[in-house]
Order: sequence, then structure tokens, then C-alpha cells
Amino acid sequence: MNLASYLRDVKDFPKPGIVFKDITPMLQSPAAMDEAIRQLADRFKADKIDKIAAIESRGFIFGAPLALRMGIGFIPVRKPGKLPWRTQSVNYMLEYGSGTLEIHEDAVQKGERVVVVDDLLATGGTARAACELVERLGGRLIGCAFIVELAFLAGRKKLTGHRIESLVKFD
Amino acid sequence: MNLASYLRDVKDFPKPGIVFKDITPMLQSPAAMDEAIRQLADRFKADKIDKIAAIESRGFIFGAPLALRMGIGFIPVRKPGKLPWRTQSVNYMLEYGSGTLEIHEDAVQKGERVVVVDDLLATGGTARAACELVERLGGRLIGCAFIVELAFLAGRKKLTGHRIESLVKFD
Repeated sequence: MNLASYLRDVKDFPKPGIVFKDITPMLQSPAAMDEAIRQLADRFKADKIDKIAAIESRGFIFGAPLALRMGIGFIPVRKPGKLPWRTQSVNYMLEYGSGTLEIHEDAVQKGERVVVVDDLLATGGTARAACELVERLGGRLIGCAFIVELAFLAGRKKLTGHRIESLVKFD
Repeated sequence: MNLASYLRDVKDFPKPGIVFKDITPMLQSPAAMDEAIRQLADRFKADKIDKIAAIESRGFIFGAPLALRMGIGFIPVRKPGKLPWRTQSVNYMLEYGSGTLEIHEDAVQKGERVVVVDDLLATGGTARAACELVERLGGRLIGCAFIVELAFLAGRKKLTGHRIESLVKFD
């Protein structure tokens, strides 16, 4: 199955000049979703993962079924003010401006093996922030997993030292 | 399994006087998640559902595994400006102020049988807006499904005429 064929190019979103990889055709196809989740689970099946930490919001769409498939816990990593209990937060730089991500303080126990999941690896800033949160709580970061990687944006450079898995890569 | 025991009360979130039902302990437990998704799937197994429409963001965490379990398509219903392609949108009233939800125009084909999913039924305004979007695209709304229902907020009244399923109810 060619997972790339389930992505739709949307020009000039969110800004003029950017071609956005729309994942909603993949979401509409249960066969493509099943294949994507199965492939992600396969890549980490030997790694004794304890938890999936997924980044709001599109990361939830892949991270939640992946955690369920692997029979492990799910951690939401969210934008500021969304998580109700005690949180740790990290600020990070975006192309223009900055962002913040938060995680519940009890989301990860010391030594737990965690994979960070998002739909897309672009410049890598958001994923790096999520990795930092997992490690700050004492988690062992096993890797990052993405459906789509925009390799020309060099997100892997921001994630140096971390294992990265992606299913569809655009050079 | 008592799913209610996987919810955590957080006082004064998001505002003083409100007791928030935190779902993150349930997300940490693969057994509880599996049970919740299985129960939701069971309730609609005779209804020949074509798609799950889940409301950003927490609805994604339950809607995506439910769609995969049922072998049907997943539709993200999102806050304004997040969906990249052509959208329909609806405004709705909140307790203070108003909100907007959007759906892709090709998310639902005429006559498709759709269930709207969110984590929580509170006053019902958000769910009603999602139902309206599904019906505006020609979908047949089979019902709404929630993990938690705050029955004292009478959300069912706003959803009169729609079938409502919830797994944990607080009176």
C-alpha cells in the first residue's frame, strides 16, 4: 500500500507559498489507517515501549490507536492551559515567534520507555520540545515517530541523538 | 471494570468552582482504554456506521481508535483555521461567548451514517454544532457518543432528537 497516495497537497496553507500535506484522506480510509498504525507498531515492537506521548492535536489521531494497538499507555502533550492537573512546560522557538507545550507531571514514571508521536516532522521544534518534557520527567526517550517527514526542512537536525521513524518521506 | 475510577477530579479547573473530570488516568491504562473503546463499538455495532466524526482535541483520542476498531473512516471536526482544505463552519453559543467548528466539505458523502464522538457531554453546545455540520453535508446522524456525561448540565436537551450514548454518567 502506498501511504503517500492518501495525502493531499493543499497549496498556500497555512501561508502563501507553503504546500500543506493534508492527512484527512488517510483518515477517511480504514485500510490506510490500519496500515499506518501497524507499520509504526512494527518499528517499535522490539523496544519494550511503556508509553506513547502524542502531540496535540493531529498527533492524538495516530498516537491513541498506536498506544491501544501496542497495549500501552497514552500521554497527551498539549498546548498551554489545556491539561487540568499539575504540569511541566517548555517553551520553544518557531519559524516566527514561539510555542509552549505542557505535560502532566504524573504522565511518565522514572525510567519508563517512551515514544513521541506526531503526524508530521517539519522543522522539528515541536517534537524536540515534547522529547524534552518526557526526559525532564525521568522518562527514557526511545524515539520519535511520524507519519510524514518533510526531509527538506531538516527536522532531524533538531532531534540529533534521537531515533526517528517516519512512514512517508518527502525530499 | 469501573471506568469512573479512571477519572480524576480536578477542582477549580478551568475556572473557580468547577470540578473538572480529568481523563488522563484512563489514557494511561490500556485496559481501561480498550474497555471504553470496546463498549462504544458495541453500542453501535448494529447500526452500520460509515464514519466517526470526532471533535478536537480530546475527542480525537477516543474517536480515532473507535473508527479503527470499527473499520470505518475518521473525520476530524476542528477549531477554525486548522483544516487545510475547503470547509463548512458553524458558530455556536458557549456559556460565555461563542465558538466555531469546521469540517472538510468532502468529509461526509450524502447518506453516510455518522456518529459524533467527544470525551465529554457538558452543556451540549459543541456536540450540537458538530451534528449540524455532519447533517449540512448530507450525512445521516446516527447518534452522539461520549465517555463522560455531566447529566446535571442537561446537555441532552440541546441534542433533542439525537441518540446519545455515554459510558460514565454523573447526576
